[in-house]
Amino acid sequence: MPQLRQDLVTGRWVTIATERARRPSSFSRAPAVAVSPAATCPFCVGHEDMTPPEVLADRAPGTLPNAPGWEIRVVPNLYPAFGPPDREPVQARVGPYETMDGVGVHEVLISSPSHTDDFAQLPVEHIARIVRASIARYTAHAANPAIEYLLLINNHGKEAGASLEHPHSQLFGIPFVPPVVQEELEGSRRYRAAHRACVFCDMIAWEEQSGERVILTTDHFIAFAPFAARTPFESWIVPRRHAARFEMMSGPEQEDFARALHELIARLVAGLNDPPYNFYIHTAPVHSSPETDYHWHLELLPKLTIAAGFELGTGVMINVVTPESSAEFLRGVDLSAPGLTAATPTPH
Amino acid sequence: MPQLRQDLVTGRWVTIATERARRPSSFSRAPAVAVSPAATCPFCVGHEDMTPPEVLADRAPGTLPNAPGWEIRVVPNLYPAFGPPDREPVQARVGPYETMDGVGVHEVLISSPSHTDDFAQLPVEHIARIVRASIARYTAHAANPAIEYLLLINNHGKEAGASLEHPHSQLFGIPFVPPVVQEELEGSRRYRAAHRACVFCDMIAWEEQSGERVILTTDHFIAFAPFAARTPFESWIVPRRHAARFEMMSGPEQEDFARALHELIARLVAGLNDPPYNFYIHTAPVHSSPETDYHWHLELLPKLTIAAGFELGTGVMINVVTPESSAEFLRGVDLSAPGLTAATPTPH
Repeated sequence: MPQLRQDLVTGRWVTIATERARRPSSFSRAPAVAVSPAATCPFCVGHEDMTPPEVLADRAPGTLPNAPGWEIRVVPNLYPAFGPPDREPVQARVGPYETMDGVGVHEVLISSPSHTDDFAQLPVEHIARIVRASIARYTAHAANPAIEYLLLINNHGKEAGASLEHPHSQLFGIPFVPPVVQEELEGSRRYRAAHRACVFCDMIAWEEQSGERVILTTDHFIAFAPFAARTPFESWIVPRRHAARFEMMSGPEQEDFARALHELIARLVAGLNDPPYNFYIHTAPVHSSPETDYHWHLELLPKLTIAAGFELGTGVMINVVTPESSAEFLRGVDLSAPGLTAATPTPH
Repeated sequence: MPQLRQDLVTGRWVTIATERARRPSSFSRAPAVAVSPAATCPFCVGHEDMTPPEVLADRAPGTLPNAPGWEIRVVPNLYPAFGPPDREPVQARVGPYETMDGVGVHEVLISSPSHTDDFAQLPVEHIARIVRASIARYTAHAANPAIEYLLLINNHGKEAGASLEHPHSQLFGIPFVPPVVQEELEGSRRYRAAHRACVFCDMIAWEEQSGERVILTTDHFIAFAPFAARTPFESWIVPRRHAARFEMMSGPEQEDFARALHELIARLVAGLNDPPYNFYIHTAPVHSSPETDYHWHLELLPKLTIAAGFELGTGVMINVVTPESSAEFLRGVDLSAPGLTAATPTPH
């Protein structure tokens, strides 16, 4: 019989219905498509004039802005979903309806000069530099009174919504706390009131003790498939230390986070033939107090199934693979196997 | 500047960011793929033994169950996401987590003997018979104390999650009121408390008066693009008469609903080259009182864009087409144009 599982933080239910996995279409993986050839790629070296001017770059000393010599480059999105950020959003009314100016931030963080290397291929030290650049942009926007929430996301693969192939992340700054984050904040508060503990800290303790959903651990992080996983191979990376904010990581934590992210994605790439995926970082809202009862983390969802009418009409996901099987599979991926070199770290 | 719009019922915000529509990938329409050839289709005439035994059929007098002679056939899903329905769901605890048996209903309603004709091609009278069969199955499950919510959905096209090409709908019966419906119920109550009126009735009145988002009207129904549309060409069909339940439609309303659904989908098919879409019917929960403050309706979302990391991480949709443009486009589709005969009603 299918099993319903409740997310410990938000209280949302998920259906685990493994019999449906027999359907051959469940794990269809379309062949990789080159979305944008390198020759016309606006994110490749030498094409710096195809993007708006950079707002941050990790580049070699002596090189000029918006010219080659960079390792990581952050630019405003040419087609922003939010922006500009330089004023308070005006609210208005149209008949019975409310509107608000979509002020905010929409930036692109270009991962590296390589058109193809992503988190599975980039060296851990380079990923740590991406983490530092992300934190620098969080911090740059945190003082803006018009921005209530900052979200860092990554779309990998055309089926996951990546419109440009060259690996990049996106930073969104929006003028309200979004509902998914609001639910997690309320769930964290509710759990604290009931148990006098952080819901994420309790979850980590249980996952380490049980072990069956753990994918990997590092000094400062644990990656596991959440108990109420919404999709096959959904994976979270959570810091062991209780901390509300991504952007307050220490230097060693930043490097260790880069290591965890690299290994998680290398396991997905090697085990599932470079699947499309989305990840995002949930951190506390910009203007919340330092004691906010939250525990930042990364949520990664491979896009191997399609959310259809049932999921849209209910908000309940149907997952055809148990998180225990997902985690066992990802733990078992051999990152040193000869056939999988493309997925293991390569010199940059 | 992008505009944020608030859904009048749920209070959720949507970003309307039309500049992003310049991206050529925004409206990519993959060529239609035959997901399941008719020869091996379990829903085609003569293949009745490839499904579980039928639970309802609209069939010619004198024909035998699970044999040819049917116009519409309802069978249990071979790979159910919920079920069986015949007992109370047992709740259990795993460490800190809650689980519940996934009891419920998951049925397939095969639209017609045709492997290809869908709502745009089927005659209105046949669609009215589909509506009647759907209502019969709603009613059959409404007395089950284990079922709290019944949802009828339709997935059209592989990109929208249809794993079998032969047109069919699905009825889900689940042991709780799902969060998306809960939000609409709470929003309806909140609006009633503030305005002493039904939020959907007020919305219909405004949409008829303004006209700019109306797609079509019939005697008993109005179809419009909602003010806070989540996707390009999102369309709702709402009964003009305040009524909480889909399954309580009168005979003339059922026929008129079939007419509205046929025309809406014919406009989508003719105007957008048979796009993939999902639709579902939101009706009051099974065991709610007859006076429940709700107004049933159908929500249809074409799948022309991909919900990616931002949408997953926030619950906020980015829509690259205004609902005013969507409605104007769909109103303007010429259903009698010679090149579009496949999309207009054809004799069955």
